Amino acid sequence: MKGIRKITPYIPGEQPDYPHMIKLNTNENPYPPSPKVASALKHFDTEQLKRYSSIDNLSLKKALGKKYGLSSDHFLIGNGSDEVLAFCFLAFFNSSDPILFPDITYGFYKVWADLFQIPFKEIPLTDDFEIDLEAYNQLNGGIIIANPNAPTGLFKSFTEIKYLLKKHPEVIVIIDEAYIDFAGHSAVSLLDNYPNLIVIRTFSKSSSLAGLRVGYAIGNPKYIQIAESIKSSFNPYSVDMLAERLAVAAVEDEEYYVELSKKICKTRDWFAESIKTFGFSSFVSKTNFVLLTHPNLNSEDLYHYLETQDVFVRYFSKIERLKNYLRVSIGTQEEMEKVAQLIGNFAKDNHRDF
Amino acid sequence: MKGIRKITPYIPGEQPDYPHMIKLNTNENPYPPSPKVASALKHFDTEQLKRYSSIDNLSLKKALGKKYGLSSDHFLIGNGSDEVLAFCFLAFFNSSDPILFPDITYGFYKVWADLFQIPFKEIPLTDDFEIDLEAYNQLNGGIIIANPNAPTGLFKSFTEIKYLLKKHPEVIVIIDEAYIDFAGHSAVSLLDNYPNLIVIRTFSKSSSLAGLRVGYAIGNPKYIQIAESIKSSFNPYSVDMLAERLAVAAVEDEEYYVELSKKICKTRDWFAESIKTFGFSSFVSKTNFVLLTHPNLNSEDLYHYLETQDVFVRYFSKIERLKNYLRVSIGTQEEMEKVAQLIGNFAKDNHRDF
Repeated sequence: MKGIRKITPYIPGEQPDYPHMIKLNTNENPYPPSPKVASALKHFDTEQLKRYSSIDNLSLKKALGKKYGLSSDHFLIGNGSDEVLAFCFLAFFNSSDPILFPDITYGFYKVWADLFQIPFKEIPLTDDFEIDLEAYNQLNGGIIIANPNAPTGLFKSFTEIKYLLKKHPEVIVIIDEAYIDFAGHSAVSLLDNYPNLIVIRTFSKSSSLAGLRVGYAIGNPKYIQIAESIKSSFNPYSVDMLAERLAVAAVEDEEYYVELSKKICKTRDWFAESIKTFGFSSFVSKTNFVLLTHPNLNSEDLYHYLETQDVFVRYFSKIERLKNYLRVSIGTQEEMEKVAQLIGNFAKDNHRDF
Repeated sequence: MKGIRKITPYIPGEQPDYPHMIKLNTNENPYPPSPKVASALKHFDTEQLKRYSSIDNLSLKKALGKKYGLSSDHFLIGNGSDEVLAFCFLAFFNSSDPILFPDITYGFYKVWADLFQIPFKEIPLTDDFEIDLEAYNQLNGGIIIANPNAPTGLFKSFTEIKYLLKKHPEVIVIIDEAYIDFAGHSAVSLLDNYPNLIVIRTFSKSSSLAGLRVGYAIGNPKYIQIAESIKSSFNPYSVDMLAERLAVAAVEDEEYYVELSKKICKTRDWFAESIKTFGFSSFVSKTNFVLLTHPNLNSEDLYHYLETQDVFVRYFSKIERLKNYLRVSIGTQEEMEKVAQLIGNFAKDNHRDF
């Protein structure tokens, strides 16, 4: 057969689904979305679905514009930040020079670069898993960094991001802020002075709407329009009518979500502290997960032990430098207390001479 | 700035939205989706949205498998048939030989070929707007045909599609059946003997769920897996949780939808017949729209006249061969009676010496 693309067949990871499981493997939010989202769903008239969804997503752009104090043309809305990132790769990374991103970061950056045949170079994190911005001072066709980074959870300060943007005025620098609501100062306010900045956001984490598939890019209207043209040439209606309606309701309940993120951060810090008792350490996370390790205990064993207890976390078997780490998403306080206890039991049972 | 893609900025067409308009410009279904869809929405617990949607869409694949008598691995589910088609173009059209499609057909085929830099050749429809299958007997890297075709509404028989598949065993032949439920015999049963066949379907037309964004491909599991890998490398969760849930409910109410399509076809045939009184003719449509023309009246004038009456239809100003045509989607019987009357008024007012 002619014309069939050569691509490694993808086998999706198992998504566990047990009645009493504690699911901490995909950085989902353990709390429900805002009651305003539930109310928007309840009042939605199904008959409207006979019409196409909005082609310009103006109602969501306006709600976001109000939140950020920016005009609607600063936003590109897509089917999750994954789709938005894919459009941005197609729109902004067309140089023959390699794009740069960390060797340990969101795994999809490499997948898109491969799919779109974009040359790329992975810049190693330092020994303590920090993004070394000096290492990016080399010939490149664009830069993408997750801030906070995943799966390390480490956060670069506003000043450091500003340094990066200043150093690379001739290329687009994408800052993927999927976890920013658990961290601190967003890069968005740098847009005024750095037209090369594109910020990516998602409703999947802090907004507790992973199942709804909505994400967006914020950037200079001149560049946003290019990404918008890619979207229009690929799948112009990708945000369905319900998704847009519910996302607007979420944006309009900032108060609820600020409290939610605070609660998750509190549990995160409590959990990181509490596992120290058993000899575990973790990086200072500014996300809704922690990356933990133990000097004497095997992470893969702990992963399997937790699985037997219906607790699902993430083990990166294919990344050499992460072989002795586990990424644990932050669930409810109650769930994390149970998980901390299980980790304690595991440590006790596997206690040898330390 | 380096690396910015050169692309013609896309300006989306205006989507009219008036309280009492008759919207016949995008081939939407004028009737509501099945009551089972409304019920599925009503019983949906918003809290579930905190979790990611399904990565393999198995519940929808199973429902479709039951409908078609095929196993789940024959289906690729996507965010509308547009996304499914985009994935199929990326998966199957990688030859250096040009892909072939009609010069007058769904406008997006050319857009994807451009976006993905796939060589292509547009094969002219005959003078009476038929797809001439003999003209496809030339060197090619794949073929895509809409059946029924849009915006002509003309339908190729099962035997003709079989001929096409038989003539091109070395390439993938995509049959886009967006309008098949208004037509007749689908090509799906040819899958057993022709592994080069990929059939595309959508929930946007006959299922009255344009705003939900769900479409799918049916094909040989070996090839479906390649398209699935493209999806997984681009945006694996593109069908949101609500969309999948509601689409399953739609598949499970075939009875409702069979009646709905019958009703629309009846109105379509009534409308096509009724405008003959005023000297209009149209192609024999097997879709939910008609492409009409008049030997002495100007189509663009009629388009603008209808617009003043809050009736929105489609005029293809940029396609030379369609300059004296209008595409009118089929609304409710009541709407079409009003539209036929308005067309009659226009004909009377513009009557000269014929």
